Amino acid sequence: MLLGNALRGAGSIAAFLELHIEQGRVLENEGDAIGVVSGIVGISQYKLSIVGQADHAGTTPMNLRRDAMVCAAYLINNVHEAASLTSQSDDSFVATVGKVNVFPNASNSIPEIVEMELEIRGKDYNKVQEFVSSVMTRFKSKAMDMGVSVTVENCGEKEPVFFDANIMGAIEKSTNDLGLSSARLFSGAGHDAAYMANLAPVGMIFVPCQSGRSHCPEESITPEQAEAGCLVLKGSLKEIDAS
Amino acid sequence: MLLGNALRGAGSIAAFLELHIEQGRVLENEGDAIGVVSGIVGISQYKLSIVGQADHAGTTPMNLRRDAMVCAAYLINNVHEAASLTSQSDDSFVATVGKVNVFPNASNSIPEIVEMELEIRGKDYNKVQEFVSSVMTRFKSKAMDMGVSVTVENCGEKEPVFFDANIMGAIEKSTNDLGLSSARLFSGAGHDAAYMANLAPVGMIFVPCQSGRSHCPEESITPEQAEAGCLVLKGSLKEIDAS
Repeated sequence: MLLGNALRGAGSIAAFLELHIEQGRVLENEGDAIGVVSGIVGISQYKLSIVGQADHAGTTPMNLRRDAMVCAAYLINNVHEAASLTSQSDDSFVATVGKVNVFPNASNSIPEIVEMELEIRGKDYNKVQEFVSSVMTRFKSKAMDMGVSVTVENCGEKEPVFFDANIMGAIEKSTNDLGLSSARLFSGAGHDAAYMANLAPVGMIFVPCQSGRSHCPEESITPEQAEAGCLVLKGSLKEIDAS
Repeated sequence: MLLGNALRGAGSIAAFLELHIEQGRVLENEGDAIGVVSGIVGISQYKLSIVGQADHAGTTPMNLRRDAMVCAAYLINNVHEAASLTSQSDDSFVATVGKVNVFPNASNSIPEIVEMELEIRGKDYNKVQEFVSSVMTRFKSKAMDMGVSVTVENCGEKEPVFFDANIMGAIEKSTNDLGLSSARLFSGAGHDAAYMANLAPVGMIFVPCQSGRSHCPEESITPEQAEAGCLVLKGSLKEIDAS
């Protein structure tokens, strides 16, 4: 509301298109020139805190330990295995423990506290929720067996966004007209289009990038990949304008 | 040599006795008043570095990941499970991953580097060496499967020290004479006695401590436990002196 008259309302924009590198390796691996993005994954984010006891690593027998890192390692492996299985039928599904901090973090002390962040993404929000529920049930049962306590804090929920079917069709027609190959795929990263979807029908065009690298010095695309993306964007806009 | 004439030579001391809290929970759990220490465990220490790739946690499908933390978690679980099994026949045997650092350590990035410290202790040095060899073989094979590289640096080796049989006998006789219960046990922590063993026959007397805690504000023993330790020390010295 602070933006006043400058604020665009829903329905005031005919269409929103965004051209972006994929930030993944799917197009590169499949040899497709263009990705027709069908939506943006939902995200569930959790902070986990595991508390055991910082006993002496030399004098505490294995069966008397309450090692927070061993419990954390169980979760990390379990998340990876379960997500790998789920992703076989839905390649938008991923789960990652990207952040792990250990206290006191000394070689001769059993880890007392592990703080971790877990992130689950996927186009099927029910599947994301079911995954969290099933992983957490196994994790809490393991923690109880090990005598360590666990705190789970949900720190972010974004539902998936599905893009406009007509716009996807326009991008595919434009790609075909240029003689380029395309694949539909879901975006695993967030983009402006997810927010613009509140105001207008939206679509996104992905071009491959080298080894999926992004936000780092290795981020790279060829002039040909950039040109293909621009031509498809131009063609798609013409298609949408004519429809 | 810098110590000159003040330096004591091997054989110049008749016996060395050390009284200490156990720093573990064995005596407390078994209800024994005195621990007759039969030696000090050997220690093998390793620094491990695992290098994968820091891809985007949203856009990188599960099957294209090289997640250093998942590989580290495999090692941590494997070490814990294998050491728990080995310790069933040798309760001096322990293995711990106490220190774990993750890079870049961000919730939306697949962990690229994990640096860890692994410590294995036990009275049977061959068993310690065999354990390391077998755990490392499985770990390196898993790392290769996952496409991550592993560097292992040995950063410490101490062989176990075995205490003098006559001194252990003198401690046990003194404990019996006082009507106290005792148990032989190996020390999982290092002590002065390990170094004095180069100069003299050595022995150690352990007294129980509350919940095995040490080097922390919770470290605690009762006056009765302290008194028992002192009386056994006095009795043992008399026994050794008389022999």
